[in-house]
Amino acid sequence: MTLPMTVPAPGLPARVRIHEVGPRDGLQNEKGTVPTEVKAEFVRRLADAGLTTIEATSFVHPKWVPQLADAEELFPLVGDLPVALPVLVPNERGLDRALALGARRVAVFASATESFAKANLNRTVDEALAMFEPVVARAKASGVHVRGYLSMCFGDPWEGAVPVPQVVKVCKALLDMGCDELSLGDTIGVATPGHVRALLTELTEQGTPVAALGVHFHDTYGQALANTYAALEHGVTTVDASAGGLGGCPYAKSATGNLATEDLVWMLRGLGIDTGVDLDRLVATSAWMAEQLGRPSPSRTVRALSHKEQ
Amino acid sequence: MTLPMTVPAPGLPARVRIHEVGPRDGLQNEKGTVPTEVKAEFVRRLADAGLTTIEATSFVHPKWVPQLADAEELFPLVGDLPVALPVLVPNERGLDRALALGARRVAVFASATESFAKANLNRTVDEALAMFEPVVARAKASGVHVRGYLSMCFGDPWEGAVPVPQVVKVCKALLDMGCDELSLGDTIGVATPGHVRALLTELTEQGTPVAALGVHFHDTYGQALANTYAALEHGVTTVDASAGGLGGCPYAKSATGNLATEDLVWMLRGLGIDTGVDLDRLVATSAWMAEQLGRPSPSRTVRALSHKEQ
Repeated sequence: MTLPMTVPAPGLPARVRIHEVGPRDGLQNEKGTVPTEVKAEFVRRLADAGLTTIEATSFVHPKWVPQLADAEELFPLVGDLPVALPVLVPNERGLDRALALGARRVAVFASATESFAKANLNRTVDEALAMFEPVVARAKASGVHVRGYLSMCFGDPWEGAVPVPQVVKVCKALLDMGCDELSLGDTIGVATPGHVRALLTELTEQGTPVAALGVHFHDTYGQALANTYAALEHGVTTVDASAGGLGGCPYAKSATGNLATEDLVWMLRGLGIDTGVDLDRLVATSAWMAEQLGRPSPSRTVRALSHKEQ
Repeated sequence: MTLPMTVPAPGLPARVRIHEVGPRDGLQNEKGTVPTEVKAEFVRRLADAGLTTIEATSFVHPKWVPQLADAEELFPLVGDLPVALPVLVPNERGLDRALALGARRVAVFASATESFAKANLNRTVDEALAMFEPVVARAKASGVHVRGYLSMCFGDPWEGAVPVPQVVKVCKALLDMGCDELSLGDTIGVATPGHVRALLTELTEQGTPVAALGVHFHDTYGQALANTYAALEHGVTTVDASAGGLGGCPYAKSATGNLATEDLVWMLRGLGIDTGVDLDRLVATSAWMAEQLGRPSPSRTVRALSHKEQ
């Protein structure tokens, strides 16, 4: 019995690239420390399951994200895998560390709102952008691909709904400084499909190629997959997801985490959209990781398919 | 701070009627027995939260669904509420019991597949339809509104993917015998948006008015809300959901239950689609019911909003 049945919907992309954020965005929100070798095994298993872009770690100061303090040890363990392994770099010092290890893809993490820029970066939005400018310039000069994360694109826990023009302005600044792609983040999970459409429409009408836009949804209110579907209808072909639904947002305690990669793959498989991912291997990986973390995966698909194996 | 921000998407309905199934489809899958007065209070609170159609109970033989054996006691406790209170009737005996209590809306429960008809009704699909024919005819003759549930419209645990023409055939039979509306059930939660579109397209192209079609999704693989969005795009205006995500399917143990009404209301509110539901009251109701049942609600929205209140 092979399910889901594949029934394409008209007008959707033929292929989607999943940007797997579990090892970075997922594990950075874990309370306990995961051994470096377990992290490396996680990345290897994700690659083996067919994921081609796996955000491996973050070169942020260990004081801020102690969970990823082993970036220097981890990266060499996985650097030779035949997949793209972007790493987060918060500033020039982080970029130096990443480049010294041979990273070929980096990401910076900006905010669409002043409140979150202040909370997360202790800077205004513009000050944060100014900090990223030399990071992006030097990365590009080294031939390194740069992703720009933009958080709080739909709502902010302090400011409420975030106006589309405010988001578009920061998106443009990130693209103008040289970012190759953006990841539009619904950090607290409040977006709904019409809001997603509105932001994507405004960005593409003002000239941003849809190929430069990724979406990054959280499932706090159960909206992540519906929002992803709306983004696919708009032509988006890069979707962030976290294996097993790992992760959350430390500034939104109720967040139940990122869109689970398995739930995404189930939908895309049903729609006949190619991802290259082997769902059974991915579910086995997330079930294994849940054991390492000592708690069940929040992914519905992982729970359903792991249960069947029992 | 009011979230989600309301941003309509073009082409969607202005209003959706939520068919609340928590008291029936939700509670019939609970292991323990819920006191009749608690059930009545649940229905009252749902009505107070603005739900206008609340499936109250089932007049099935207590041997099969002991959880709802108190239908005769429950119905009079809620029958005067100013809302529609459909009840499930499996056969003429069930119809007699419902009519005797003054029920004005009933529902029959058919299967799109032979395997589930055999497992659930111990009949072939055609034999089950023959059993429903006098039920529907007598209900209609009494001026009673009849809903036809059709389960396993997308996948079946024994048969795998269910072909669209097979589903369309049973839908037609139910409409031909006089059902006023259908509820297309993804009983095991395997559907994806393209499959939903395909079934709705085939039904409406063959002449079924979209107003006669409701959708009933389960969140086993996290697809329920994305599927609902695809159905809204097709013009569907009746959506089944269960407060707090209560329920599941006894023949698919991994089922995590029905689409949660709160997650649905969050999306519809974001899309500017009117439902008449007060989300805060609904969340409070589901949080209260979760306490009665002694376990947390599986609804992401209930968990997120209940957490904030703490």
